Amino acid sequence: MTSQQYPSKLLERAVTEFSKLPGIGRKTALRLVLHLLRQSNETVHALGESLIRLKEDVKFCRTCHNISDTELCDICANPMRDASTICVVENIQGVLSIENTGQFRGLYHVLGGVISPMDGVGPADLELNSLVERVAEGGVKEIILALSPTMEGDTTNFYISRRLAAHPEVKLTVLARGVSIGDDLEYTDEITLGRSIVNRVELNAR
Amino acid sequence: MTSQQYPSKLLERAVTEFSKLPGIGRKTALRLVLHLLRQSNETVHALGESLIRLKEDVKFCRTCHNISDTELCDICANPMRDASTICVVENIQGVLSIENTGQFRGLYHVLGGVISPMDGVGPADLELNSLVERVAEGGVKEIILALSPTMEGDTTNFYISRRLAAHPEVKLTVLARGVSIGDDLEYTDEITLGRSIVNRVELNAR
Repeated sequence: MTSQQYPSKLLERAVTEFSKLPGIGRKTALRLVLHLLRQSNETVHALGESLIRLKEDVKFCRTCHNISDTELCDICANPMRDASTICVVENIQGVLSIENTGQFRGLYHVLGGVISPMDGVGPADLELNSLVERVAEGGVKEIILALSPTMEGDTTNFYISRRLAAHPEVKLTVLARGVSIGDDLEYTDEITLGRSIVNRVELNAR
Repeated sequence: MTSQQYPSKLLERAVTEFSKLPGIGRKTALRLVLHLLRQSNETVHALGESLIRLKEDVKFCRTCHNISDTELCDICANPMRDASTICVVENIQGVLSIENTGQFRGLYHVLGGVISPMDGVGPADLELNSLVERVAEGGVKEIILALSPTMEGDTTNFYISRRLAAHPEVKLTVLARGVSIGDDLEYTDEITLGRSIVNRVELNAR
């Protein structure tokens, strides 16, 4: 469907802008835009302005680089959180996912991605220096590396462990890998299952 | 994922507004919003403003009720189109789909839906009176009913044929139903295949 067929330039522009979003083609964009046309002026204004406001006013925490409305995010500013444990994540979704578990009371460090030469992402593009600086300031006992279980994630883990070699007092850990809870063994991939046999845990230790 | 977990009110508001769109859940909305955060200010402004502009400035053609930038849409205003043939469609996508075929040179009439008592859509909610008025003005030779092949579409077809009973000079037609071109018979549903046998066409007529 070429753009010339739209009966309205305004419609065409909205569809074009919408279809720039990842995973949204022109047909979906048209469906969403026509849905919005049927909504009230207030609804459409609320969506349009929320995007513009977010982009203009949002901040990133000066310590952990998570998205925030303030200079220091709510997690970093919370005195109840354990500042001696830092969980390193790729992005904001990582923070949300781990917060969602309710199992972690430490602080975060959002890298902004992983080292990926194929995508042109080097260490300088990520918040790696600021992580090393946080460690150098002292008080950190453990760093949990919670990156993707991919080659890029492993590369980044290795890079971080090298950069922190001067701080042997800081424990480096990664997330446990193994069979998902509630998962049928039959449907667990072989690599995960294989690793979970190698790294088996004593029943008493659970 | 409850809304309280978002680290920023601005982010939460944008995700909430985005997830009001049909087929977009909170996780997809978050992914789209975080994607937008990585784009330039201009890109985000262009999206936000294109939506607001569309909603505020778009018009609907006074004749066919298709979306338009002007009082009379480009199709209705085009003297090369055959004003004696009107194709009745449910919505704007119907116009786009038929225009896309390049096989139709007449005008359109966008109903805005089909009669559906289950959804509370009655004849008064659709552009049916304006269709009857267009016919009463004279000059229309044929009305092509291109509505969905559903019970609601058939009901609407029947309603239109009753409302136009006073104009026997106007031919009423519906889209041909049959096996899709390029489709394997094996994968054609039985109702369509059955109807295409009953309504078979002489080979010469093709």
